[in-house]
Amino acid sequence: MTKKLTIAFLGTNYHGFERQKNAVGVQNIIEDTLFKILGEKISVDGCSRTDKGVHAREFVLSFQTENSIDDNRIITGMNHFLPPDISVKNAETVPDDFHARYSCTGKEYEYLIYNSRNRNPFYENLALLYGVKIDEKILQEAVMPLIGEHDFRSFCGQNGIRENTTRTINDIKIKRKEDLVSIIVSGDGFLYNMIRIIVGTLLEINEGKRKLECMSEILAAHDRKAAGRTAPAEGLYLNRVYYD
Amino acid sequence: MTKKLTIAFLGTNYHGFERQKNAVGVQNIIEDTLFKILGEKISVDGCSRTDKGVHAREFVLSFQTENSIDDNRIITGMNHFLPPDISVKNAETVPDDFHARYSCTGKEYEYLIYNSRNRNPFYENLALLYGVKIDEKILQEAVMPLIGEHDFRSFCGQNGIRENTTRTINDIKIKRKEDLVSIIVSGDGFLYNMIRIIVGTLLEINEGKRKLECMSEILAAHDRKAAGRTAPAEGLYLNRVYYD
Repeated sequence: MTKKLTIAFLGTNYHGFERQKNAVGVQNIIEDTLFKILGEKISVDGCSRTDKGVHAREFVLSFQTENSIDDNRIITGMNHFLPPDISVKNAETVPDDFHARYSCTGKEYEYLIYNSRNRNPFYENLALLYGVKIDEKILQEAVMPLIGEHDFRSFCGQNGIRENTTRTINDIKIKRKEDLVSIIVSGDGFLYNMIRIIVGTLLEINEGKRKLECMSEILAAHDRKAAGRTAPAEGLYLNRVYYD
Repeated sequence: MTKKLTIAFLGTNYHGFERQKNAVGVQNIIEDTLFKILGEKISVDGCSRTDKGVHAREFVLSFQTENSIDDNRIITGMNHFLPPDISVKNAETVPDDFHARYSCTGKEYEYLIYNSRNRNPFYENLALLYGVKIDEKILQEAVMPLIGEHDFRSFCGQNGIRENTTRTINDIKIKRKEDLVSIIVSGDGFLYNMIRIIVGTLLEINEGKRKLECMSEILAAHDRKAAGRTAPAEGLYLNRVYYD
């Protein structure tokens, strides 16, 4: 049987999702816990890699099992054994051709910025503390050229270059609620560090280091060096994972 | 000189605000940190007691100092030394008759409920996990008799009975955003455990253990036993503190 598991995790204490040998990835914890519940050595497939410190409000993984355990018992059993910073939101039995990564048709990420000079205990490790006042309307304008299908090679971290760096961004929305600025990006898929480099570039525009109109030129350059810095992991959340 | 300090703290690791001898209150940390900044033994007055585990998005305290240090340097200096779960939002010099507790004219509290059967890592210790589906419109109706000036003795924890238990609640708003239910209460002052007992009583109404119309009878009883249980501390936030 193929199972689809939807989890959430606080990334602060993990070296990303993927199983690690000399550090703890979320996958290590999930597979150890599945072993406790199912009595089987399980290997899960995650919907994406995530970096150290990146959070997930929704993260999907799939696995095969011979165990006929009820899906609700997987949820309650895992939530009993998992540490407080990881939880299971849903478990369901899916068609055998389902794969958390290959079946995925889109994702939504959010980057949270606590826009203040003073830190806030409620956003510690949960948002980027950033003191330069952000004008969210100007950044919304700056980001518009990125929407649509483009070769995003300039926004791809050095270790993540693949043959095909063309992706489609469906929407980018930048909103403010008091001191909290949220950048929500949805698309069919994302390159390594793509959101963090987009955000880092926006911050450089905000600091007057780049022109408001720079994004089209950066896209055209096909060169990581043309874009801005990589914003820290702590502000990044995987919000939603889409399947047909 | 009299200083007014506005702080925020995550209450999880503290035994309330007040200085403790055999445990750590937020006040211990604040006074130790002020000693580092000012080189003076400072005794601060807080705007209220808070219970172990209760959080504050805004908490005001006042103190006297001989030191002529700039207010901005108090902010940055304290945020440098304070632990991640406490921060200073503002520091200002105020008239000498200002007192964080006695000058306070009102407060706003919020009680957060994560209304789901499965826990969420982002609300661990930050909201009450509560699995019985809440109808926020019904609870909003139930709570209306509490608005206005009343003797709230029935909603006062055993250890907090004082001569005058009359208080004015200005407003109570119950809102839902997806799985998060928020109960916002503002008033001129609150008795010991008053919000937590109001919330506990609402939960009993939600569970069908009490009638929707019970609040007027409970008020009239002037007896703690007439009200419902005390909801856990972890969902409670001091949101705002008002001064003229």
